[in-house]
Amino acid sequence: MSHEFVTAHIDHFRAQLFDLLRIPSVSTSPQHTADVRRAAEWLAADLRRIGMTRVEIMPTEGHPIIYAEWLGAGTHAKTVLIYGHYDVQPAAKADGWHTEPFEPIEKDGAIYARGSSDDKGQVFAHIKAAEALLANGGQSPVNLKFLIEGEEEVGSTHLGDFITANREMLRADVCVISDSGMPTADQPAIVYGLRGIVGMQVDVYGPAQDLHSGTYGGAVHNPAQALAEIIAKLHNPDGSVAVPGFYDDVLPLSETERAELRQSALDEAIWLAQVGAPQPWGEAQYAIHERTGARPTLEINGMAGGFIETGMKGVLPARAFAKISCRLVADQQPDRILQHVRDHILNLAPPTVRVEVTPLSSGSGPAFVDIQTPAMQASIEAYAQGWGKRPVFMREGGSIPVVTDFQQELGLPVILMGFGLNNDGAHGPNEHFVTEMFRKGIHTALYFYEAVGKGRN
Amino acid sequence: MSHEFVTAHIDHFRAQLFDLLRIPSVSTSPQHTADVRRAAEWLAADLRRIGMTRVEIMPTEGHPIIYAEWLGAGTHAKTVLIYGHYDVQPAAKADGWHTEPFEPIEKDGAIYARGSSDDKGQVFAHIKAAEALLANGGQSPVNLKFLIEGEEEVGSTHLGDFITANREMLRADVCVISDSGMPTADQPAIVYGLRGIVGMQVDVYGPAQDLHSGTYGGAVHNPAQALAEIIAKLHNPDGSVAVPGFYDDVLPLSETERAELRQSALDEAIWLAQVGAPQPWGEAQYAIHERTGARPTLEINGMAGGFIETGMKGVLPARAFAKISCRLVADQQPDRILQHVRDHILNLAPPTVRVEVTPLSSGSGPAFVDIQTPAMQASIEAYAQGWGKRPVFMREGGSIPVVTDFQQELGLPVILMGFGLNNDGAHGPNEHFVTEMFRKGIHTALYFYEAVGKGRN
Repeated sequence: MSHEFVTAHIDHFRAQLFDLLRIPSVSTSPQHTADVRRAAEWLAADLRRIGMTRVEIMPTEGHPIIYAEWLGAGTHAKTVLIYGHYDVQPAAKADGWHTEPFEPIEKDGAIYARGSSDDKGQVFAHIKAAEALLANGGQSPVNLKFLIEGEEEVGSTHLGDFITANREMLRADVCVISDSGMPTADQPAIVYGLRGIVGMQVDVYGPAQDLHSGTYGGAVHNPAQALAEIIAKLHNPDGSVAVPGFYDDVLPLSETERAELRQSALDEAIWLAQVGAPQPWGEAQYAIHERTGARPTLEINGMAGGFIETGMKGVLPARAFAKISCRLVADQQPDRILQHVRDHILNLAPPTVRVEVTPLSSGSGPAFVDIQTPAMQASIEAYAQGWGKRPVFMREGGSIPVVTDFQQELGLPVILMGFGLNNDGAHGPNEHFVTEMFRKGIHTALYFYEAVGKGRN
Repeated sequence: MSHEFVTAHIDHFRAQLFDLLRIPSVSTSPQHTADVRRAAEWLAADLRRIGMTRVEIMPTEGHPIIYAEWLGAGTHAKTVLIYGHYDVQPAAKADGWHTEPFEPIEKDGAIYARGSSDDKGQVFAHIKAAEALLANGGQSPVNLKFLIEGEEEVGSTHLGDFITANREMLRADVCVISDSGMPTADQPAIVYGLRGIVGMQVDVYGPAQDLHSGTYGGAVHNPAQALAEIIAKLHNPDGSVAVPGFYDDVLPLSETERAELRQSALDEAIWLAQVGAPQPWGEAQYAIHERTGARPTLEINGMAGGFIETGMKGVLPARAFAKISCRLVADQQPDRILQHVRDHILNLAPPTVRVEVTPLSSGSGPAFVDIQTPAMQASIEAYAQGWGKRPVFMREGGSIPVVTDFQQELGLPVILMGFGLNNDGAHGPNEHFVTEMFRKGIHTALYFYEAVGKGRN
């Protein structure tokens, strides 16, 4: 019945989305603060109208967070926490848009507007699924909680603290995030693993000040050279990280998982053409998508020392430094990896220089949901019904700290159930959301709530 | 008789030097162009007055060069080429001078003025020695050629071309330069070796543009890491340079030479306190003064890649580079060393990145005059008579391109016969020239001409 409701109201839902897309809720720009607020109020009003029983626009030190809940399924039913964001990236026609970014139009089967895919359209699909369930005095098979923030495009600055401060309110059985894309329109994909990150700076100090390389060169250990000598010992010749203990907590890839990952793997030649490097590099016993998704790394994000302007200067620098970050996979912990790398670097430091290692952030752990867990199985069923095709499973190399927050602070499995396409133009000009994917997204969200509600979670 | 002439006229010589020091011939400053010219004219007039037979102010594209000669000793006699400069560093009382820098005064036995030591006072000592020889229809035992430039403080921009264009005119048997200091007033010192230099840039290219270190990290060879891995292979664990062929042309240090060098060696603890590094570094079988003076080096003058601002950025950089220079000792040649280092780096380059090595200059060869050569022996005799003490011999780690020019373009042994003190304040405030060293310098120059003239050259 809910699905028929969606079919009957899809044109109205799209018209409503157009209204939301007209609000330029650009979180990066102070001149749009009122617009950001207006978008929050618009969504809160819609959430109230569809029958959510508690709807609040909760203040933060930045843009507000919308919280909405419907707990009518009862204390014994499962609860789904839906995360999304109502803020958008900046956009101006002059950036290469063919139409005004905040005047949505439908063209060639897609809705063109800033935020159509990232993330208004995707989070709105969930709201419309909830509407379909609650319409005409209906019931949802699961309790529903919406957490929709207004600062995702500025780094979710206040979300972590908000989650920590509202653990009880946000308690749920599963968190679903629809804020990503799939490789092709007919092949749904679920990201079940994200890498964490931890960063540090390595400073190498030699002489008290920059020296004349003629007068002193040959008798002073050059800090740039000493740093290079340390960096060169951080990897083994096979591309693996040479830090003792680095791989201790890495979950091994099972053959089942490797087979699953192969289904969505990009062809190596296509990947290499995108990258533009002479050859791939790294651990030969792992495929490229495994190296970038399922294996941890140690990367030199930056390094510098001495004279780096145009020309030449006969200087023996007093200092050199490198910024290093490690991408982490389950079950590595940022603080443990930081300690291992730091210990190794300090062990490598020769007595001819002074070496310091300073953390650059507290880091963020990897996110990982086992494909065999009920929540994942529910998402497979939802896609199979909503898309008519079983989803493929992927691991992504980047980090989404908010996923880690949900996982670590709330202890929730997080399902990254994207309804967009990778080439939707999020953050670029002519962002769009395929209308058919908006429709399928609503149905898929419904199927997901139903699958979770059947106690499969 | 010439020495008595010096003794009789020393007060007058000093008064003349004061006149020269009053001219603010600051070559770096366009507003002093006329003053620079005036200093050249003043010196040319004095050179004519003392009896030099050909005196010319020869134009360059910058400040003019003074050339003067007296060839009365005849074609079978030796010829001494005296190099000096009449331009000075900028100076203003506000920089910390106790007196006006261009109003010379004598105080506590020293002449205070900009240029008193560097180099007007020292080159003028040679002119006064020539005057003493030629006075009253006298003869010099050697032919004399003066080459006094006005651009030493701006890098001798036009001197190299001038020398090349005037090889015949400048032909001589020995070149003497008095433009340096000795460690203490009673211990004359001769620098008989200077290191040459050759520089290059190493660029390491990886992906076509900076990549997200999460999305791509683990499958792309990071150019900063690849550069560090190359740099780490440029030295052996014992501190020597690991480039094949690097030491092929290095003249070995004889035990005699090592004993000679030890006489002026700085105590290691004092040296280390000056440097401020935790420990000395380098080839253990050589003393510190040998490592910096008599051994070649390969130095990282600068290196950079990726994100080097404050904070952290998850970037896998597209490029990293290093600026490398080698200090050379006799008989290493800049072009050969460049080739050796370049070949080695390109051999080390892995196929996962693209490496380019670009020369940063044509380099300059090392300068070296064997202590046993007659010109050196003449200078020993001159100091022994003029200073009452045998000079010590030193090798300096820096490079003075003009010395290389004289040596390579004119094929001359170059004697660096400083009359100043290391702490004369050249380039700083309160530059001064100890009056007694001005007087001894004139006598020592005379003894030198006499020693060369006795056919010891």
